[in-house]
Amino acid sequence: MKPEAYRLQLETYPLVNTIPSRFQDLDPLGHINNVAIGAFYEEGRGNLNRKAFSLEMRKTHGMRMVIADVHIAYLDEAFYPSDLVVGSGILRIGGSSYTIAQALFQDGRCIGASEAVLVNTDGKKPAPIPRQGRDALESLMIKTA
Amino acid sequence: MKPEAYRLQLETYPLVNTIPSRFQDLDPLGHINNVAIGAFYEEGRGNLNRKAFSLEMRKTHGMRMVIADVHIAYLDEAFYPSDLVVGSGILRIGGSSYTIAQALFQDGRCIGASEAVLVNTDGKKPAPIPRQGRDALESLMIKTA
Amino acid sequence: MKPEAYRLQLETYPLVNTIPSRFQDLDPLGHINNVAIGAFYEEGRGNLNRKAFSLEMRKTHGMRMVIADVHIAYLDEAFYPSDLVVGSGILRIGGSSYTIAQALFQDGRCIGASEAVLVNTDGKKPAPIPRQGRDALESLMIKTA
Amino acid sequence: MKPEAYRLQLETYPLVNTIPSRFQDLDPLGHINNVAIGAFYEEGRGNLNRKAFSLEMRKTHGMRMVIADVHIAYLDEAFYPSDLVVGSGILRIGGSSYTIAQALFQDGRCIGASEAVLVNTDGKKPAPIPRQGRDALESLMIKTA
Repeated sequence: MKPEAYRLQLETYPLVNTIPSRFQDLDPLGHINNVAIGAFYEEGRGNLNRKAFSLEMRKTHGMRMVIADVHIAYLDEAFYPSDLVVGSGILRIGGSSYTIAQALFQDGRCIGASEAVLVNTDGKKPAPIPRQGRDALESLMIKTA
Repeated sequence: MKPEAYRLQLETYPLVNTIPSRFQDLDPLGHINNVAIGAFYEEGRGNLNRKAFSLEMRKTHGMRMVIADVHIAYLDEAFYPSDLVVGSGILRIGGSSYTIAQALFQDGRCIGASEAVLVNTDGKKPAPIPRQGRDALESLMIKTA
Repeated sequence: MKPEAYRLQLETYPLVNTIPSRFQDLDPLGHINNVAIGAFYEEGRGNLNRKAFSLEMRKTHGMRMVIADVHIAYLDEAFYPSDLVVGSGILRIGGSSYTIAQALFQDGRCIGASEAVLVNTDGKKPAPIPRQGRDALESLMIKTA
Repeated sequence: MKPEAYRLQLETYPLVNTIPSRFQDLDPLGHINNVAIGAFYEEGRGNLNRKAFSLEMRKTHGMRMVIADVHIAYLDEAFYPSDLVVGSGILRIGGSSYTIAQALFQDGRCIGASEAVLVNTDGKKPAPIPRQGRDALESLMIKTA
């Protein structure tokens, strides 16, 4: 994944979360471990999903989102104890799936970018995203260059 | 907690699990992080609980075990990628609670010991451990000196 | 550990940190896993150590703190995505060791308390805490009832 | 990432590691969390790197591998307490970088596949992989269909 320049700008993302790093995120090289980095993107995705799909909508439609694909580009090291800032937004919306684009920042530096494909399911197989949910996702699109 | 000498011997414990360390367990000092150490004891306790209480017993009696207290003594450093070996056994059995004693080993060295109090509940409040469960716990007592 | 009532009050602790929970902290029972809880206390201890011992002091005296003992009482469940608030302070100061007392809160409820013994070492064996460090620890004592 | 069928066969991979799942890997949905899944692939990569590059080679050449890109396809759920089996091998070798292909299995089912790009550095910038290291990587190529 070779993310385009605009994807490394915080302004691109409609949703922004600040997440403190933890000592546990560190690895023996003194920076935040690359698997641990995954948790920061996960927090951003969870935040986006809570914004887009209310508990009521999920219950009414029996929605259960599963993750199908995650791609992370590691661009720079992250350290402790500074906060990490994750920007998240929607890149694409399909019939039952959608793609979240994200970037991660620390002290103003972009330290990585990510794309994740999520699929709405009925608990077993893919299911169409309800209209109300699609509208919510559309309001959370990233600002393309 | 100043564990007695016999508590630092693997022979003391009726149940023994071997658990590989993971790169993620390491901290910037190059040894396994002290919070991560907690996961090895947790694996030993889970193993003991699965041995003592069958799924059928849990369902029949509506048993749900919650952890009330964990005490860990850190005696030596642990490293990656060697395995950790956890010994687990029962120290005390009360009406609705029981105490698990454990010790952790790497390459023959005892690197720590732990005690944890678990309480059987009905999902809300403490509930007596059923006779069959007490018998199972008694068969898993540690060998006192 | 049966913590006294004053230990379950946030006002007891001179240092307070707010730490967001993460989805990863959850376990299959839907609450924050008891091993994961250990990381919140660790963040509070790290914060206290950074306040008490400057990098310069650590270098000058070759200080390296190791954890000898951690005791956690689990009093209530914690959930996601609310923040956790950890209060930390000093309970006892010895020649080369000191005890940190802590409590953990979520949405105003005390969900647990902890005590941890840390030992100052020269990298190998216990070493006296320098005067400047002792003074700093004394300024961070918990407010006893 | 739409992995080809041969990439979902354990026989494709020259290196195989068996890694027990941990209770901590679970999430509230009762399966192994997708970020936690990243740690299993990381163990496989670490194992491959230790096989390919001896400590002596790393020291002599000042090698330090950093991860540039990780792509994971999630194909099925994984559970606890069964072991996970990770297959790892080399997909491509460049001047200073190489790509590791992996797949993850549980109880005979392929639950996912991954590709990761690693870059050899001198600690700061990309550095050519020494001849001896290239030979080792070549001996660990995956078996293409």
